[in-house]
This record gives sequence, C-alpha cells and structure tokens, in this order.
Amino acid sequence: MRKIHVIGIGAGDPEQLTLQAVRALRDTDVFFVLGKGEVKADLVQLRRDLLDTHVPQGTYRLVEARDPERDRAAGGSAYSPAVGDWRSARAGIYERLIAEELGPDERGAFLVWGDPSLYDSTLGILEEVLARGAVDFSYDVVPGISSVSSLVARHRTGLNRVARPVQITTGRRLAEGFPEGVDDVVVMLDAHQTFRRYADQDIHIYWGAYLGTPDEVLDSGPIAEAAPRIERLRAEARARKGWIMDTYLLRRNPRQD
Amino acid sequence: MRKIHVIGIGAGDPEQLTLQAVRALRDTDVFFVLGKGEVKADLVQLRRDLLDTHVPQGTYRLVEARDPERDRAAGGSAYSPAVGDWRSARAGIYERLIAEELGPDERGAFLVWGDPSLYDSTLGILEEVLARGAVDFSYDVVPGISSVSSLVARHRTGLNRVARPVQITTGRRLAEGFPEGVDDVVVMLDAHQTFRRYADQDIHIYWGAYLGTPDEVLDSGPIAEAAPRIERLRAEARARKGWIMDTYLLRRNPRQD
Ligand SMILES: C[S@@+](CC[C@H](N)C(=O)[O-])C[C@H]1O[C@@H](n2cnc3c(N)ncnc32)[C@H](O)[C@@H]1O
Ligand SMILES: C[S@@+](CC[C@H](N)C(=O)[O-])C[C@H]1O[C@@H](n2cnc3c(N)ncnc32)[C@H](O)[C@@H]1O
Repeated sequence: MRKIHVIGIGAGDPEQLTLQAVRALRDTDVFFVLGKGEVKADLVQLRRDLLDTHVPQGTYRLVEARDPERDRAAGGSAYSPAVGDWRSARAGIYERLIAEELGPDERGAFLVWGDPSLYDSTLGILEEVLARGAVDFSYDVVPGISSVSSLVARHRTGLNRVARPVQITTGRRLAEGFPEGVDDVVVMLDAHQTFRRYADQDIHIYWGAYLGTPDEVLDSGPIAEAAPRIERLRAEARARKGWIMDTYLLRRNPRQD
Repeated sequence: MRKIHVIGIGAGDPEQLTLQAVRALRDTDVFFVLGKGEVKADLVQLRRDLLDTHVPQGTYRLVEARDPERDRAAGGSAYSPAVGDWRSARAGIYERLIAEELGPDERGAFLVWGDPSLYDSTLGILEEVLARGAVDFSYDVVPGISSVSSLVARHRTGLNRVARPVQITTGRRLAEGFPEGVDDVVVMLDAHQTFRRYADQDIHIYWGAYLGTPDEVLDSGPIAEAAPRIERLRAEARARKGWIMDTYLLRRNPRQD
C-alpha cells in the first residue's frame, strides 16, 4: 500500500527539524512540493535545502506542483485546478499527484511549514482525497515546531501565564474584537496589522517576522509604543523582500475592576 | 559570563528532539535535572537516556535537585526550599544551583518537558533569579514539540478548524464552563476528567495519555460514547503505572441556531 508522511519541518530554521522528521525524510521516495507562486519561492528553496542536507541525493524524486490557492487562473502546470472551490481543487491535485507519481509500494511525503496542526490544509485535503475513494493510501503525521513556539522562544516568554488559558486565532477574527475569556492571544495570518486597533489598551505585544530565518525581525513592548515601530519595521521588511510572514502574541493585563 | 540553555525536549518521544536541541545538549557543561518525587522517576530516566544517546559521556556533569512543588517538607536534598511560596522557593534553588554548580564561563541547561512555552515555570523562575540580582547569566530558549502538537499529530487532526480559533486551557478552567468564543479547546493539567461534564453535548474528543512513550494510549470519538471508555482506560493505566499524563482536544460542533 502507498504510504504518506505529513512532515512538519519547523517555521524557518532548518535546525528545527526533529530527529523523527529526519528519519521520515530518509524514508521517503517521492516528495511533493506545492509552490504558492513567485513570492514564496524562498520557502520552496528552503525545502530543497533541507532535502539536500538530510537525504542522500539520488534516493528520492521531487515533484513540484502549483498550489491553486493564489493561482487559480494561471495554468501552465500539469496539476492546475479546473474550477470549483479551492479545497476540492487541491484535493484533485493531490489525488493526481499520489495516483500518478507514487508507485503502489512507495512512500510519499508532504513537507508542511511549521506544525501541520496549525492553519494548514494538508490533513483536511488528504482526508478529502481518501473520501473520494479513487486512490488508497495510509498516512502519518510528524509534528513540527510551529511559528507560535518559535515566536515565544525567541522572546523567551511563555504562551500562557500561570494556570491561565491562551488562544490562537487569526487577524480576521481579531478584527471582530479581542477574544472573550482570555488575556493571552496569538495572532496568525494577519495581513492588516490588526494589533493597531488595540494600541490604547494595557497590552504587551511580542512580535516576530521571518522567524528562524536569516531575515528574522523581533520587537516587543507596551503596545502603544511598539505598534508604530512594528508598523514601520514590517513595511520596510515587506518592501525589501516582497512578502512577509509575521506572528504576534498580545498579552493583556487583566482588568483590575 | 554564565550561559543557560532552556531546552524543550518533546513530550515523551526521544525522536522529538530537534537538531537545535541536540546541538544545545552538546554545548552544555552542566545539566540541571529537577525531580518531582518518586512517581515521576520515569521522566527523570528519560532525560538521562536522552543524554546517554546524544552527548558523549564524560563531557558533562549532571546535577539533580528536588523540585519543591510536591516536596516542601521532605528535606534530604542539598537544594530543598526553606519557606515562602513555591516560586520563590524554586527561584532560591535555581539560584544556588547556578551559583554553586556552574563555573563562571560554563554553560548550563534545563531540560524542559514538551515545549517550554506551555504550562512550564522554568522561564518565569529564571527571570526571578535574574531579578534578585545575586547571580548573573544570559539564557536562550530552544522550542520543543509540545504534548499538544503530539496529541493532534497522533490523531492526525488539526488544532484549529479552517479560519477558526483554538484555546489551550487547564482542567480547572474547563470546570468553570466551556470557554467562550471557541469550539476547539485543548485541555491540559486535568486530574479530574473534566470532559465528563460535557458528555451530553455535540462534541468530539481526541484524547491521549503518555504520548510518545511506549505506554501511549489514544482514544477518540463522540464524547457521549468515548467518555466512559476513556474513564476506564485512564483508571487502568493510572493503576498500572502509578501516575498519568494526559491531554485532550474537545471539538464542538458549532450551534446551528
Ligand atoms: C498558513 S499559516 C501556517 C502556520 C504553520 N503551520 C505553523 O505551524 O507555523 C501561516 C502563518 O503562520 C505564521 N508564520 C509561519 N511561519 C512564520 C515565520 N517564520 N515567522 C513568522 N510568522 C510565521 C504567519 O502568521 C503566517 O501568516
Ligand atoms: C506542566 S504541563 C507541561 C506541558 C509541557 N510543557 C508540554 O509542552 O507538553 C503538564 C501537562 O502536559 C500534558 N502532557 C505532558 N506530556 C504529556 C504526554 N506525554 N502525554 C499526554 N499529556 C502530556 C498533561 O496534560 C500534563 O498535565
């Protein structure tokens, strides 16, 4: 039977690979690398570098395909989606990749950024492929260091305060209001620097961009002071590189009322 | 100057060490191992095994001390706390360990279970030691695979659902009510199987004990069916080993109203 490893590779630092991930890489015949367009070419390169470092050349094949997410109309790839919603489009691509590129007794792998459990669609898509029933395989998941763990490690702080909860959410959700019932909130996928709306509150922000990479930028402080600084840093970095990945923790002082 | 590595070692599987953690282990002169009493002797042993596997013998010293948490009155250790609150007691122990056992240019390390960012006091205590001003050092944090990442990897599911938030909380908090504003909740530090209170709701539970170790037990399902099963499994496992570490994800179907 075909077997697939879904391997968390950490959020930027190649040394964040676990020993289990290295073992899974070496166990793999075919790597599927899904690109997200030009701006993320750096991230595809990082995956190639991981393979060069950890897996003997000539022991594996690399199959690149285009992720439909930001590239619905582009075409030009053997695995570009037809129509329909993105998840189905992706399931169609994955199905063809597995059926056509992976021999019946071979092992394939998807290299997932950070930890496969956080805001990543790979597991959902593989389940959808299995549900379609056209191709059969088993799969396992190798956890990875997420950008969230990476962020707080670099800032040398915890995610939660003693005996208290923490929430992980998106920029879009944060725009709807500060989450209820928690004072520690990690925000991912925020293209709009939503933290700025809370700049008048008693909040400490811990921010990081390109964590674990040579371009890493960190900043932290009381949000009133830090927000304008982060806005500037973020704009500069984004202009320089053409894209940005950033994450932050908002730590609110519990109300005294 | 003295330097300290706070190293996340994963939540049970020695293969969950990252390459960065292995490098930090090899860079260390003195390991501080804080025991938590007899029942956790297995966990101290796992740390020793990690060192045996990854660091050449004779290149480091191992200093064991008793964590005051469950052992305030026991005595018998060179580093047992006097009086006062636990955190100060721990800060006192850490301060003495660093001052007395670590040479001025040496590197020390604390091996932290899972990821140092989740429900772990090491970073808070090191900050307290620095604030006391009696001993000076710099420190860095190596992120680790948490029991949370491990749990969902073994269940091959995500932490969050698409574009939705996830909260990480404690058994004690969950006893006060299902958290507001989220339908995906990870529960740690739950000695009372608090999930049982929600057994009449439309919730799927993903549960795991001793994750990553040879004793690992997993179960999942609609909570009404799974809760009594997990209760039984947990009681059996606990009786067999004398202690238990378990974590679970509650995934509630959003209300249709
Ligand atoms: C689609 S999610 C994937 C998250 C990933 N699975 C993880 O565990 O980190 C992408 C978001 O993760 C965050 N992110 C990922 N890598 C990052 C990095 N190296 N530095 C800062 N943020 C990062 C950003 O918030 C970005 O918008
Ligand atoms: C003091 S907290 C430390 C958490 C740790 N820093 C981490 O990242 O997993 C201890 C709690 O973590 C969870 N835990 C830790 N290791 C576990 C394992 N191997 N299996 C299941 N739960 C575990 C349990 O909920 C336990 O009560």
